Amino acid sequence: MATLPLLDDDTAGAEARAVFDDIRAKRQTDYVNNFWRALANDPAQLQQVWDRLQRVMAPGALDPLVKELIYVAVSVANGCDYCIHSHSAAAKAKGMTPEMHAELLAVIAMASQTNALATALQVPTDDRFKS
Amino acid sequence: MATLPLLDDDTAGAEARAVFDDIRAKRQTDYVNNFWRALANDPAQLQQVWDRLQRVMAPGALDPLVKELIYVAVSVANGCDYCIHSHSAAAKAKGMTPEMHAELLAVIAMASQTNALATALQVPTDDRFKS
Amino acid sequence: MATLPLLDDDTAGAEARAVFDDIRAKRQTDYVNNFWRALANDPAQLQQVWDRLQRVMAPGALDPLVKELIYVAVSVANGCDYCIHSHSAAAKAKGMTPEMHAELLAVIAMASQTNALATALQVPTDDRFKS
Amino acid sequence: MATLPLLDDDTAGAEARAVFDDIRAKRQTDYVNNFWRALANDPAQLQQVWDRLQRVMAPGALDPLVKELIYVAVSVANGCDYCIHSHSAAAKAKGMTPEMHAELLAVIAMASQTNALATALQVPTDDRFKS
Amino acid sequence: MATLPLLDDDTAGAEARAVFDDIRAKRQTDYVNNFWRALANDPAQLQQVWDRLQRVMAPGALDPLVKELIYVAVSVANGCDYCIHSHSAAAKAKGMTPEMHAELLAVIAMASQTNALATALQVPTDDRFKS
Amino acid sequence: MATLPLLDDDTAGAEARAVFDDIRAKRQTDYVNNFWRALANDPAQLQQVWDRLQRVMAPGALDPLVKELIYVAVSVANGCDYCIHSHSAAAKAKGMTPEMHAELLAVIAMASQTNALATALQVPTDDRFKS
Repeated sequence: MATLPLLDDDTAGAEARAVFDDIRAKRQTDYVNNFWRALANDPAQLQQVWDRLQRVMAPGALDPLVKELIYVAVSVANGCDYCIHSHSAAAKAKGMTPEMHAELLAVIAMASQTNALATALQVPTDDRFKS
Repeated sequence: MATLPLLDDDTAGAEARAVFDDIRAKRQTDYVNNFWRALANDPAQLQQVWDRLQRVMAPGALDPLVKELIYVAVSVANGCDYCIHSHSAAAKAKGMTPEMHAELLAVIAMASQTNALATALQVPTDDRFKS
Repeated sequence: MATLPLLDDDTAGAEARAVFDDIRAKRQTDYVNNFWRALANDPAQLQQVWDRLQRVMAPGALDPLVKELIYVAVSVANGCDYCIHSHSAAAKAKGMTPEMHAELLAVIAMASQTNALATALQVPTDDRFKS
Repeated sequence: MATLPLLDDDTAGAEARAVFDDIRAKRQTDYVNNFWRALANDPAQLQQVWDRLQRVMAPGALDPLVKELIYVAVSVANGCDYCIHSHSAAAKAKGMTPEMHAELLAVIAMASQTNALATALQVPTDDRFKS
Repeated sequence: MATLPLLDDDTAGAEARAVFDDIRAKRQTDYVNNFWRALANDPAQLQQVWDRLQRVMAPGALDPLVKELIYVAVSVANGCDYCIHSHSAAAKAKGMTPEMHAELLAVIAMASQTNALATALQVPTDDRFKS
Repeated sequence: MATLPLLDDDTAGAEARAVFDDIRAKRQTDYVNNFWRALANDPAQLQQVWDRLQRVMAPGALDPLVKELIYVAVSVANGCDYCIHSHSAAAKAKGMTPEMHAELLAVIAMASQTNALATALQVPTDDRFKS
């Protein structure tokens, strides 16, 4: 169903397999999900995305759960079905409660509604919002 | 520049003016920003959006700053210039530091990149991500 | 500001000028708006879009005002500032009242909100909605 | 497949079940479609969306069929598969003929084409389109 | 699953069947893919899209493979699953190698990332980029 | 107008200034455009994006001009005004002729039209398009 085959340890090259192994080690699971197996058709891209993702999603000024909530929100607005599923699951794994999930959805719905209204009305930006 | 005139206290009807007053009271400022003044052309819509916004953005399982970050993220993905400006300003007012802002942008950029890749590759959702 | 120069009667070629004249005759105005003057850099594209627009927006099973409302709705969802301005103006010229405008905005806002919710929840389509 | 379970009368709480019953009564059908059953995980959100939808889609300056056509148009531009299916079905139920459907699609296609052109060309808005 | 039935040679009218035959002749295949069979519910739209597609995708200043790559890129950004599948297949048929595919994906991912950053930052356009 | 200040050589830190210098050296120009000066508020992000951009846009299986055309196409579909301006300018600098530009716009317009139709019709993917 993907536009490129999903590679597993047998069909992926050595470079991609090394990334698979790193994913397994860092995530402490045997499972490598489909996104990485599709990306493995281009090992350099696979490596770049995996490296970057670890850096971006690491604890920092924002905690990892907040980062996952933001990730889900962007994925919903961009209509990426795969990403909505995978990052909603990741958010739950990182501690998103049903109450948090409900509030996340409410904010996404609210923003989508007012985004459409501000765009439809072509509201000019207030001077005080310009930095 | 807007597709409808921005109403002020003189041009808005009594119903819209009452909402303006409530915005001023709740936000403890004299300033009513352009979004509300454009919405005032339809006082019922103005009332509904203002009421709903207060409920959705109130403290709950997620704190108000996290909600603003999610709001900014959705507004960026939807390309709403007005909303990006107004909610970035709101996030700063609620305590978003430069470090948080940088991480917010990094997560939005990362999600946008992987959203595009997962969509381009048409990656099928792993069974384990289905609830 | 456009990525290509806006051509006028002096700078456009004969083929584009003929379309300008047709626009003036059909719309009974001397004014040719910027969209057509930007498209005039590719006279074949200009001709194709103008011809197609007349056919698509002509009275049929749906009346021209309803078609303009749909055009505005799509333009808002696609975030096309130029199109929102030009087709909101066209809708007013074809009889859109302030009440109709308010209801148009309310439907766009509602749809944007529920689109986001259905996408975030990844709601599977009910069998009865499949034709 | 949804990111939250679809609740039925047995699994939903009393508050959500009351909304289900109201949907059944108002729509004169026993069937409650998946969107509402997914939303039922947050009864307050379910209530808010259902209430708002009834108000927004009621007859007014625009008739309910025109409102459904606009809803479909927004859902297509936002790429919400569920909403395209459910609101195309609703439009048919409210009287959309095959000829109307064909014209709706033609306007959506036309708007999508010119939205892309105006955006690609970055056409500046004509002064006369500014209110 | 489509919102309109997929018509075949028996259910399509004479006008649509003539387009099917033209597709078969031009593409030297017996197979008419689902997009055309769905469009056949509106024979005039079917004819218009098929005619236009041939003109737009013909060799010109850009070669047909480059045009397919651009088509895939737009389809990804618009999130059109059908179009991503059909035009990725078309690109392969026209000579897209795995290396080209990998670079296409990398450019799409890069553009999506920087589009989000430029939008989030609301970067003003440099004077020198204005024509 | 940006949501963060545009930094120049005086206001940027040493790390960002080093990237500015590298941009100047690689592009053989004194000019550093606004995108980089906005990104300079987060020197690590600036460095990452600049490094990645060079790798992705370098000659490979696709030539740099083709990559710019794809970049413009994605930017149009994502509605990023800044990126449309900057990458249209970059494409011209790399040899895009007016004829190529016209064909690029025609393909973007065509894809946007058929993306909308395939989505509106919810056309199921043909088995033969699945890899």
